[in-house]
Amino acid sequence: MAEIKKINHVAIVVKDIDQALRFWQEELGLELHHIEDVPSQKSKVAFIPVGESEIELVQPTSDDSGMAAYLEKRGEGMHHLCVEVDDIDGMLERLKEKGVRLINETALELPGRKMAFVHPKSTNGVLVELYQLI
Amino acid sequence: MAEIKKINHVAIVVKDIDQALRFWQEELGLELHHIEDVPSQKSKVAFIPVGESEIELVQPTSDDSGMAAYLEKRGEGMHHLCVEVDDIDGMLERLKEKGVRLINETALELPGRKMAFVHPKSTNGVLVELYQLI
Repeated sequence: MAEIKKINHVAIVVKDIDQALRFWQEELGLELHHIEDVPSQKSKVAFIPVGESEIELVQPTSDDSGMAAYLEKRGEGMHHLCVEVDDIDGMLERLKEKGVRLINETALELPGRKMAFVHPKSTNGVLVELYQLI
Repeated sequence: MAEIKKINHVAIVVKDIDQALRFWQEELGLELHHIEDVPSQKSKVAFIPVGESEIELVQPTSDDSGMAAYLEKRGEGMHHLCVEVDDIDGMLERLKEKGVRLINETALELPGRKMAFVHPKSTNGVLVELYQLI
């Protein structure tokens, strides 16, 4: 049966990654792994390892994305929680059977990983990302 | 120098722990460790291990707490991010020197642990809890 293995990352939406790194890197002392442009998600992302997980600082690079809309409406803060699963297809099947509302009914396949989002209506307001390394 | 070791927990504020466990335990398949009444924080908390971290579902048990006010204003969702540090006093000193706004200028000492909150004004909107096992 599909199982959650760990927290993969906590994503924090920010207005300006360079400004945000002041706290997370310089003040808190975490190490920045790298910053990546993610045009498919109209954002750039700073990856900051913390134990077996990561904190991801996400800055929208366009006004017409879900992340930009979230930032406009709710301000900076935690955006989603990503958990790593060993069998994302099995997990999505189980969630569907149980009537959980999904944003992605089937997993999106990207190089090295598969991912899907569960709708906050089914998760006590938390946007949950499921993630499997492949 | 004080260092962050891992994500200790992500706290999710919910209206009703039993209802919330439907998703996190029954549907997602995570195991509930235990539920605890925390009168000092006017809440009860479900502890759900995920890898080296935990998800904590927090239900306010009184209307006059910060958590209840948050729930009223923002609805259910992620409330704070707790990171484990090896030297919380050293970390608080460093943050103060760097001008970071703290909710607790000195760590609160509880049986087995010390903790302090950093103000979201200094952390891109994320309520950050620092936590040290002692």
